[in-house]
Amino acid sequence: MNTLQVSLADRSYPIYIGDALLSDRELLCQHINSKEVLVVTNTTIAPLYLETVLANLTEYRCDSVILPDGEQFKTLDVLNHIFDALLQNHFSRQVTLIALGGGVIGDMTGFAAACYQRGVAFIQIPTTLLSQVDSSVGGKTAVNHPLGKNMIGAFYQPQCVIADTATLNTLEQRQLSSGLAEVIKYGIINDPEFFRWLEQNIDDLVARKTSALIEAVERSCRDKADIVASDEFEHGVRALLNLGHTFGHAIETGMGYGSWLHGEAIAVGMIMAAELSCRMGWVSREQVDRITQLIQAAGLPVKSPTTMSTQQFMDLMAVDKKVQDGRIRLVLLTDIGKAIVTDDYDAEALQATLDYFQSQS
Amino acid sequence: MNTLQVSLADRSYPIYIGDALLSDRELLCQHINSKEVLVVTNTTIAPLYLETVLANLTEYRCDSVILPDGEQFKTLDVLNHIFDALLQNHFSRQVTLIALGGGVIGDMTGFAAACYQRGVAFIQIPTTLLSQVDSSVGGKTAVNHPLGKNMIGAFYQPQCVIADTATLNTLEQRQLSSGLAEVIKYGIINDPEFFRWLEQNIDDLVARKTSALIEAVERSCRDKADIVASDEFEHGVRALLNLGHTFGHAIETGMGYGSWLHGEAIAVGMIMAAELSCRMGWVSREQVDRITQLIQAAGLPVKSPTTMSTQQFMDLMAVDKKVQDGRIRLVLLTDIGKAIVTDDYDAEALQATLDYFQSQS
Repeated sequence: MNTLQVSLADRSYPIYIGDALLSDRELLCQHINSKEVLVVTNTTIAPLYLETVLANLTEYRCDSVILPDGEQFKTLDVLNHIFDALLQNHFSRQVTLIALGGGVIGDMTGFAAACYQRGVAFIQIPTTLLSQVDSSVGGKTAVNHPLGKNMIGAFYQPQCVIADTATLNTLEQRQLSSGLAEVIKYGIINDPEFFRWLEQNIDDLVARKTSALIEAVERSCRDKADIVASDEFEHGVRALLNLGHTFGHAIETGMGYGSWLHGEAIAVGMIMAAELSCRMGWVSREQVDRITQLIQAAGLPVKSPTTMSTQQFMDLMAVDKKVQDGRIRLVLLTDIGKAIVTDDYDAEALQATLDYFQSQS
Repeated sequence: MNTLQVSLADRSYPIYIGDALLSDRELLCQHINSKEVLVVTNTTIAPLYLETVLANLTEYRCDSVILPDGEQFKTLDVLNHIFDALLQNHFSRQVTLIALGGGVIGDMTGFAAACYQRGVAFIQIPTTLLSQVDSSVGGKTAVNHPLGKNMIGAFYQPQCVIADTATLNTLEQRQLSSGLAEVIKYGIINDPEFFRWLEQNIDDLVARKTSALIEAVERSCRDKADIVASDEFEHGVRALLNLGHTFGHAIETGMGYGSWLHGEAIAVGMIMAAELSCRMGWVSREQVDRITQLIQAAGLPVKSPTTMSTQQFMDLMAVDKKVQDGRIRLVLLTDIGKAIVTDDYDAEALQATLDYFQSQS
């Protein structure tokens, strides 16, 4: 088992990465400080892993909530099911919530923990590649609003994260690829050496070779933890993690939550950002091609949805959180391994990029 | 105008107390850091003061949301109206929310500010005595859940609080008295000199003499600010502020939100706490009588609702936040001006206290 410390002053916490950690009772229980535990999971994960986790918790007054599975259920209404369960159990401010599932479960459970009685403890057990490398690091929790993704939430850190790579064996291939999109992102924005490692190992990752998965999860978490530690509340460098997200969120919203997976939308979004960067003369055509090829090799889409117009993209991008005083701020590239946040790009180049993807789709 | 600083490290903020502050454009605008403002108010306050506040904001891209008035609307569903307005306006992370109204508006607007895009700025303009002396100090924000009051919320501090005592002139007498319950509370728990001042000035306060109101608001805010500054997240001494609240929340929940006003329920709750303290031999009968008389002189109820049984009280108190490992922790008295948090009271004395109020009601 590898342990990685996310350093955030008095809110620091460890991430444990390894094989078959789910049945490690001691690992889990050392981070629970009271007798009350609520496990939050979904209809897909519950039959696979809930029993294993509950078997570790026989010493506690414990209950579980099983939410419907999917991004379309990441709403205030469904969040309320968690509050219902907490209150029906008369759970106090000392309760610990355990998020067992992917990013949606992690985001909702974390937000419920941030809000229940103004803040209780929670533990993340991410069971998808995407959540192991993304939402488990950094303390971003949220639910969606019909008018925008992740618009209602909190910065809130868990007690610990337990990333069991064995859980990735039950993942659908499409979900695995979606996680690889975020893994690739870390290479593109900040870690050129990791990008090259990914070019060499992408086939092993797609084939779920355990050693490759552990390496990819650990390097991704380390890259993200470094960035988050230097900018917990996203005033600066942390915004680089949004590479592909402004385009990607537009796709997710435009297509309806749950139609495109988050990683799929981000994958195309990253290629769009690279394309715009290329049109600005900041990266070469060859670099855009390398990015596109790696994303394709990961089993991800490289074209935008056929049904979305340039205007629809522009409208949806305008409600994204990255808008400041009316200008859409984007994460763009000056190299593979070097991203910048900027609104100093040519509006016509953005238009041309969107038109280009429209014509390709 | 009097200014009081609430000291909370990097989240410190000023409270301005005085007459006719609502039309002071400069006072308000110096605390707004962007061009986007959303004013949140309710159907009672909007016709009285919204125009005055909006007249200060002509330089901003500004909108307002008018919520239904009442504790029964302090829900996740109604909270969502604020998010709707923020997103329909495409307001960014730089927006400032202004809470114009009583405690419900302050709690909901503060919680919306804590959650919108994971945290935006907000300003409190409390227009009731209760909110001026209570919810405007300390950063507690929340909404209710059908199974418990203030169960979903956040600790979140405003940029500033503007307490205009002129707004108290339009307050219903019952609302004024409700605010006086919290004012009296500060005397009982921590400030015996203020308690004596209140005994001497209660008639002036009930008659809304401006100088008495300003004095009472300032001393209450100062007492509360001192306590909050030493315990922002309620791990210790801050819990004393809950005097009467465990009993009072049971009354509010038992009678249905909005039937008893918060201060009315707290008033009876404080007398119940005093009665239990007396039965434990910690305070004298004469002290209980002084507390009861002051509360009565403030125009507040001193008896519990006729329809609530001892068992109903016990059941409702068991879901209160102050429960730790099954024992109901209560704020009780050892003197006028000296409160303690304890679960070291006689269970039979609690039962007898509830039975006594039942027989009196």
